[in-house]
Parts: sequence; structure tokens; C-alpha cells
Amino acid sequence: MSIGDYIRLDHGSGGKLSHRLIEEIFLPHFLNDSLKKLDDSAVLKIDNKKFAFTTDSYVIDPIFFPGGSIGKLSICGTINDLSMSGAVPIYISAGFIIEEGFDLGKLEEIVISMKETADEAGVEIVTGDTKIVPYGNADKIFINTAGIGIIPDGVDISSQNAKPGDKILINGFLGDHGIAVISQREGLDFQTEIKSDVAPLNSIIRILIESEIEIHTLRDPTRGGLATSLNEIADKSNMGIIINEIELPFRKEVIGACELLGFDPLYIANEGKFIAFIPEKDSERALNIVKNQKYGENARIIGEVVNDFKKKVILKTKIGGRRIVDMLTGEQLPRIC
Amino acid sequence: MSIGDYIRLDHGSGGKLSHRLIEEIFLPHFLNDSLKKLDDSAVLKIDNKKFAFTTDSYVIDPIFFPGGSIGKLSICGTINDLSMSGAVPIYISAGFIIEEGFDLGKLEEIVISMKETADEAGVEIVTGDTKIVPYGNADKIFINTAGIGIIPDGVDISSQNAKPGDKILINGFLGDHGIAVISQREGLDFQTEIKSDVAPLNSIIRILIESEIEIHTLRDPTRGGLATSLNEIADKSNMGIIINEIELPFRKEVIGACELLGFDPLYIANEGKFIAFIPEKDSERALNIVKNQKYGENARIIGEVVNDFKKKVILKTKIGGRRIVDMLTGEQLPRIC
Repeated sequence: MSIGDYIRLDHGSGGKLSHRLIEEIFLPHFLNDSLKKLDDSAVLKIDNKKFAFTTDSYVIDPIFFPGGSIGKLSICGTINDLSMSGAVPIYISAGFIIEEGFDLGKLEEIVISMKETADEAGVEIVTGDTKIVPYGNADKIFINTAGIGIIPDGVDISSQNAKPGDKILINGFLGDHGIAVISQREGLDFQTEIKSDVAPLNSIIRILIESEIEIHTLRDPTRGGLATSLNEIADKSNMGIIINEIELPFRKEVIGACELLGFDPLYIANEGKFIAFIPEKDSERALNIVKNQKYGENARIIGEVVNDFKKKVILKTKIGGRRIVDMLTGEQLPRIC
Repeated sequence: MSIGDYIRLDHGSGGKLSHRLIEEIFLPHFLNDSLKKLDDSAVLKIDNKKFAFTTDSYVIDPIFFPGGSIGKLSICGTINDLSMSGAVPIYISAGFIIEEGFDLGKLEEIVISMKETADEAGVEIVTGDTKIVPYGNADKIFINTAGIGIIPDGVDISSQNAKPGDKILINGFLGDHGIAVISQREGLDFQTEIKSDVAPLNSIIRILIESEIEIHTLRDPTRGGLATSLNEIADKSNMGIIINEIELPFRKEVIGACELLGFDPLYIANEGKFIAFIPEKDSERALNIVKNQKYGENARIIGEVVNDFKKKVILKTKIGGRRIVDMLTGEQLPRIC
């Protein structure tokens, strides 16, 4: 697939063309050790102390959706990116780009949801910026957050660190965020409302680390879904990954919506989920810990890392077959986060 | 002036309505010590080490202008915000929001200008994010940068710290950025091209600090111009400020453009200027140091802090009169940064 001459929606999908954009336009110029790893956060050393630093812009449409808002999402997303490096998030910045004519009441609702989420997660919003653009120059509101976290001594978590035999743990149902947002956007009316899973994951990760669970890799499967995150890890760790279809946790409403809309649920975005790669010796204990935490009740082990199938993700189907799960090609859902 | 029910361009001017927006919508919810100070950076303590953390979104139109681009601006702006707390900038994040259809060659030009500016200033771009929105949902490209800097021991610079007798130093001509951008946008053709002053100021600030110049307050007069920055400092330090019209450094082309366009040059944005509040004992030495630096050749002392006229900025006119210089009311130039 050629990168082309113009930006296409696919360039922001989180999938193949996103990676091409990063590898062909950004990396050749910005090249440094932190960026090269392409983890969710940069891991930085200042005076021998390890920090995580990350940023994300949020352009989700609609800005209010079942289970959350662009405000809640903008805090959770950055907290989760920091947490995926094992960091304890502490400080967050917030940059607003707002379209002329935007309702100030809605802005306040968004601000309140940011504050509530920050309070729940124990982080502080310490610096900010607001730009207003003329009507029609942006769609309602975009929010950027950046975050700083402290990485505890001894923690070394990276998408390059998955090892053969690692079990893959997920903390609950997949695909809720993407389906909740697209349903709201398209005005689809399912019998049971599907809510976004958007949630801060720092507390659950912190407890795993404090319980001395050995964690090799953490990732939040957002844009591009589970399939894309697993492919990134298989690629960077130079390992194979096998997942068991029968273990994958999907709500039947999400499966139903995906069938209706023609989506593959493996590629649907999540905003309150992580996958953890944990050596077998610690995996059952980790599962029990996660199951006892908020946002972890439906955790399970969905697969493992193998030495074969280097850089590939294999799905063992319910009927015993095997198929390769590729990275997302093309944009499934624009403005999903 | 009422804040109103809807976002207006004035809310992003950097002037009075911007302050109302911050004070009535953001501060009541996000309230914490760092935000309350409303400095350009938050000053944070981790393990007794002081850090500065800041963010800015850049929505400038046009994205290429005489003297720079949105890319160069996005790095300078954040470096300068960090520098205004006395911090040595070290790490920068970059978040891109790009409109579908945007030219990839232009994107690469922007990326290159970011890298060149970061290299000049000795900072690293360590983490990033790219979101693509459908055609018409944003105008070309918006960039957010956040930055982290280290504040040397003993440095305590804040807009609350201006003291009576402080001399006010500026490092060169005022208004170049705003006039360069508006000229390009409106297709105005002046005899001499006015170039934006966009530049990283960290090196010049670092040399002042290393030379043990006592600095009470630093500010980069961006949106809202010199008048707005001085008003903020007068207000937060609870002091009066007197500036001498005859000392204000303006290029005659900028004055000419302002007359033509009906702008007051005191409110025009700069992107490579700082004002430093320095006790008289150090002020002449500081001036000499700055004059010997890149981006400081045209430095001069433009005024001083007084005990009278609390929270007011007074302009001594060329003919010996005095007038109050208020904060900007209304939006002079949308999308200037």
C-alpha cells in the first residue's frame, strides 16, 4: 500500500497506513531512541529517575456518548498510555481547540468530566491552553492532553519485551467503546444500550506492580483494536502470538452490532482495556488480582506468546482452525477517539 | 463584559474575555496551586527537583508565513513558555490533528522545521500522536506541543514576583509576528517584507541565569501583545508598570502596517520576544548580555515597576503625556498562533 501524496482517513486508523505515515514522515526526521520504540509513552531518565511522557489529541465525534464524553476520554486516554509503561501518572496538561459558537454549558460539562476523572485517578491537571478558531475551521471541540508519570524502580515494560510462554491477560469485554460511539453517531437503536468502557486503568496496573507480578508488556487496545495491538507487539518483540477465539470476551450486543455494521470486532476500539503479557508462573495470580479490581471483573486469559509464527498473530477458531489476524488495513471508524 | 452562552473569537484573544473564560469555566473546576498562578508553565516538584510543564495548541493560518511555519512556531512557543519560568527545556511532545486531503509534502516540510528548531534549541521531540479528521472537520493542520523543563536550583521566576524599581527589558522589535502573519493571510504587499520573529529563547534566558542576573519575572508577549502581558504582570504582582513610548522598539514597517490596518501595535503578537523584570542593580549588565546574543541584538529597557498605579500599566507618551494601557478587549487577530 503506497503512502500516497495526500492525507487519507486511513492514515489515522491506527493500522497499516498509520504506521507507514509514522515510519516514512515522522521517524526519519524526529529519530531518537524514545520515538523509535513506538510505545504509548516515551520513557525518559532525569537524574537516574525514570519518567513516562505521552500525548494524545482527542477528536471524537460525537463529543458526548453512552458512558462518557470527550472530556472523560481525554483524561483516561493519557492516564492509560502512561500506565502502559508501568508509570504512576501524576500530572496532566490540557489544550483545547474550540470552534466559534460552541455552547459554553457543554464546555463546562466537559471540563467537569475531566476534573472528575482526574480526581478518580489521583492525577492533577496543572497547565492548559485554549485556542478559538472561526466557525467552520474545526468541528466543535478538540482536546489534547499530555501526561507525566513516574516509573517505579525495577519496572521495565515495553512492547519489545514479550517472551515465549507469556500468557496474555485482558481485563474485560472488547469493543464496547467503538460500538457505543458509532451507534450514537449513526443514531442506531439497539435493544440494550452499549456503553463505552472508557475508564482510567492506573489503579489496576499499580496494584499488579505492587503485588510483584512480573509484567513484560502492557498495551491498551484503542484505535485498531485488539488485533492491531497484538500485531504491534508480535512485530516489536519478534515473537508469535496465539489467541483463542473461545476465550475472547465480547458482549453479544457488540457481536450483533458488528454483524449488522460489517465490522470485525477484533479491530474495534477500546478505551478502558489493557492486555498484559505475564510469564506463566504469575499469570493465574495476576488474573485473580485483576478480577477483584474495579474495571477488571471480567478479566480472562486469551492467549500466549510462542516462538513460532514470528511477528504473526494467529487466531485459534472455535471449531479448531487457525487463521492469521493481520493489522488493520483501511479506516474502520474515523473520529473514534 | 459578559462571558455569554457561546464561544466567541474573543474568548481566544488572550485578552479580557480569555481571562473570563479561564476564571469562570476552567479554574473553578480544575483549581489547584499550579493553575491558579496562570503562568505560562506549571512549576512542579518531584523529589525536591523543580520542573516546568506546559502545553500550547497551534492553529495559525496561514501555516507557512514569512519567517516560519506552524511547525517552527509549535516548537518555539513551547520552548519559550518553559523558558519564561527559568526552566531549561529538555523534552517535547507533538500531537497532530490533520484534515483529510492535506498535502504530505507540506506535512514533511512542517516536520522538518520542527526538527530543525528542536535541534537549534537542544530539545528532543520524544513522543507524539496523529489524528486525521474528515475533510472539512478541521482547517489543514493543528499542532499541539507540550514540554518539560528543569528549573535550576535557586531560580524563582513568576508573574507574581515583579518588584518596585525593577527595570523592564525587551530583547528586540515588537509586533513582527502578528504583522507578518496578517500580511500573508490578507495578501498585503508591503514594500519591505516583514518577517515573523519566531525563535527559541531558551539559550538567551539560560545565559542570563548562568550570569547570575536576578530575574523576578519573565513573559513572552504572544497573543494580546506587550500590553496584555504587562497588564497580567501588573495584576498578579499587584504593582504599577510605566513604559516609555520613546523606548518601545517598533520597525517602521510594522507601525505603517498597523496604521493601515487599524491595529494598535502594543497588542500585536510576538513569538521570539521576552520581557524580563530585573532589579536596577543588574539591569544594565543584563542588557549588555542580551545584546550580545542571537535574538537579542536590538534589546533595550522600556520601562519600570512602581508602587503607584497598582495593577495598571501607564504609557508615557513621546510628548510627555500619560495614558492607561488596558488589556486587549475583543479579538484583534484570530488564528495568529
